[in-house]
Amino acid sequence: MRITGLEAIPVAVPDPPLRNSWGVHAPYFLRTILRLRTDEGLVGLSETYGPDIVTPLMVDRARQVVVGDEPTNVQRFAYRLRSPILAGAVEVACLDLIGRATNRRVCDILGGPVRERVAFSAYLFFKYAGDDIWGEVGSPEQMVALAGKFVDRFGFTTLKVKGGVLPPAAEVETMRLLRQRFGPDCALRLDPNAVWSVETSLKVAYELERSGVWLEYLEDPTEGIAGMARVRERITMPLATNMCVTTWEEIAPAVDARAVDVILSDHHGWGGLRACQELGRICATFHLGIGMHSNSHLGISMAAMTHLASVVPAMVVASDTHYPWLTEDVLSGDGVRFDGGALAVPPGPGLGVDLDEDRVAKYHEAFQRGVVRQRDDTAELVKRDPGWLPIKPRW
Amino acid sequence: MRITGLEAIPVAVPDPPLRNSWGVHAPYFLRTILRLRTDEGLVGLSETYGPDIVTPLMVDRARQVVVGDEPTNVQRFAYRLRSPILAGAVEVACLDLIGRATNRRVCDILGGPVRERVAFSAYLFFKYAGDDIWGEVGSPEQMVALAGKFVDRFGFTTLKVKGGVLPPAAEVETMRLLRQRFGPDCALRLDPNAVWSVETSLKVAYELERSGVWLEYLEDPTEGIAGMARVRERITMPLATNMCVTTWEEIAPAVDARAVDVILSDHHGWGGLRACQELGRICATFHLGIGMHSNSHLGISMAAMTHLASVVPAMVVASDTHYPWLTEDVLSGDGVRFDGGALAVPPGPGLGVDLDEDRVAKYHEAFQRGVVRQRDDTAELVKRDPGWLPIKPRW
Repeated sequence: MRITGLEAIPVAVPDPPLRNSWGVHAPYFLRTILRLRTDEGLVGLSETYGPDIVTPLMVDRARQVVVGDEPTNVQRFAYRLRSPILAGAVEVACLDLIGRATNRRVCDILGGPVRERVAFSAYLFFKYAGDDIWGEVGSPEQMVALAGKFVDRFGFTTLKVKGGVLPPAAEVETMRLLRQRFGPDCALRLDPNAVWSVETSLKVAYELERSGVWLEYLEDPTEGIAGMARVRERITMPLATNMCVTTWEEIAPAVDARAVDVILSDHHGWGGLRACQELGRICATFHLGIGMHSNSHLGISMAAMTHLASVVPAMVVASDTHYPWLTEDVLSGDGVRFDGGALAVPPGPGLGVDLDEDRVAKYHEAFQRGVVRQRDDTAELVKRDPGWLPIKPRW
Repeated sequence: MRITGLEAIPVAVPDPPLRNSWGVHAPYFLRTILRLRTDEGLVGLSETYGPDIVTPLMVDRARQVVVGDEPTNVQRFAYRLRSPILAGAVEVACLDLIGRATNRRVCDILGGPVRERVAFSAYLFFKYAGDDIWGEVGSPEQMVALAGKFVDRFGFTTLKVKGGVLPPAAEVETMRLLRQRFGPDCALRLDPNAVWSVETSLKVAYELERSGVWLEYLEDPTEGIAGMARVRERITMPLATNMCVTTWEEIAPAVDARAVDVILSDHHGWGGLRACQELGRICATFHLGIGMHSNSHLGISMAAMTHLASVVPAMVVASDTHYPWLTEDVLSGDGVRFDGGALAVPPGPGLGVDLDEDRVAKYHEAFQRGVVRQRDDTAELVKRDPGWLPIKPRW
């Protein structure tokens, strides 16, 4: 089986005005749908970052590397692509192809699942009111109300708050109210995206611990391996990161500095599903936890993330996902349905998902109209607040 | 495709009287050939330690775990088998099955090869004269002569000496003569199996470095992570181990102590080919080298080791193998042929090897005759030297 074509379809998909420490999401998020075709007439799917990151030049390089070769040669592709992002995008599409060709699920190509249901976390944002059903979330009380909707609708038992938006005391109060509302069995996380100083991070951890608000982990309170290590040596609750350890090169220094407890993987950035399996083994070997980070994404990534979490034994905490914020998926059929905050591994073959061509065309057209050209959360917030600067640390 | 049967065939295969720091090899070595059968009539092969290690009770457990399940469920098997040795043996046979079922090589199931030719090392032993073609090797000069035969016959460009047999000064002299005879481009290794004290290890390294005999690595000069770390901090040449880091649990302490430069993997002990791929990623991530250890083995393991080394990018040094000491393989056909010290990855499908049933029967019968019941190199040397004790450190 040889790859005969690689097609990259940029799409722009409606997104609510979700806030973070850099600014706010634009009305559309960008993704790239990757489609490989083979001489046997099979199609393999993948999804990755938007064309602002996976540029046309990169797509050309990917095409030159993979067309004419076999989809089993993913390691060779990775070296020739010289980009973990491209390598990951190509690998997932190759695994989808191999699965379709051999009538196996992607998880069964990767050693077989250790769990058939994968738990996900509610990913809760402070947000502006917008063209969405969720309304404004600008206070601790509104965040608790939003969490209630997510729990009711999707069954999540893990709640992650994207922090770094309100002053730290208000975010501590948010976590306190969430603990009060959802009880001791609900796993809570707070992620201010490194907008706090070390000193503020210590104070927040102290206030949370003193209030009896144990977090499953505090994610990236402050910037850098050295900063995280300074926080970690003086607090009790675990520290997670998807910011100071995002490459292989950062792992050894982070372990050496004892900077983190949990590494949040992301197959889009780390080089694919196999790479994240290897990351899982590294975390287990060094007694670190492993979770899964998410950007705004569609159902292809949702399927890939579910297959991945099913095969990484160490991935025992709920994975992040932006999926519930999506108003319409590009998949054919009803798309993905959460049950008790979890997803079953799609039955396959391959990733187990197919595209709705009309929807793909619609969102590709939105991209072509230029509704958003690159992700720039800061520029988006400057439209609302001309003086805004994403200073770090802000507090 | 479901597994319908698991068969374990213990074999005893002639072995020359090879010496090491524990004693000497018995006239036969023990291995177990594993054969999985499926409802589609396929057979998957694997080879592992002898029945003294992979006991009948373990084989029963393996049978209970895998029969009725699919060969893609290797991760599930690993957890249920509760033994990395069993998990590795079963995994290789499952990969052979999957390869045969999908007409793919094992290396292509594992991400695809990054090299099609795998370099191996001459594994040179001091030895007694025996029923073999190699004669006695009891002096530095005889070791050089043996190395010449291995180089002429197999084309090896890496020479590993199993040391810990002669007094350290004689082994230093051996390495000096090998360097003199085979020139600066020949990679040399010395492995005394941890029979030296830290002080002796330092002296040997000093003598080698002072004589201009650079070793690719010095393997396990002394015992334990703490001992290796004491040697490593004061010598220049790299230290390798297959003794103080043989489990996942030992990696973090070894990295923390800066005990070693190179970890020698072994898919038979670490849990299989995927496990060793993950070990390769760990080594690369922590800037350690990775090589491959060997016990006495047959052609099935030879094929598995070749597939493995072809897919682990970090495995850039020659792998160990006892294969040249084998007088007759259990494979059908001519068996394995080294070319320039290397093997091509078998073209498959699966591992790409098949059994000669007559030879299997012959060596199984030898096992059943009880020619050797368990590996005990010390007991074997006591037969020659009644006062022998494998004291460590001996020097």
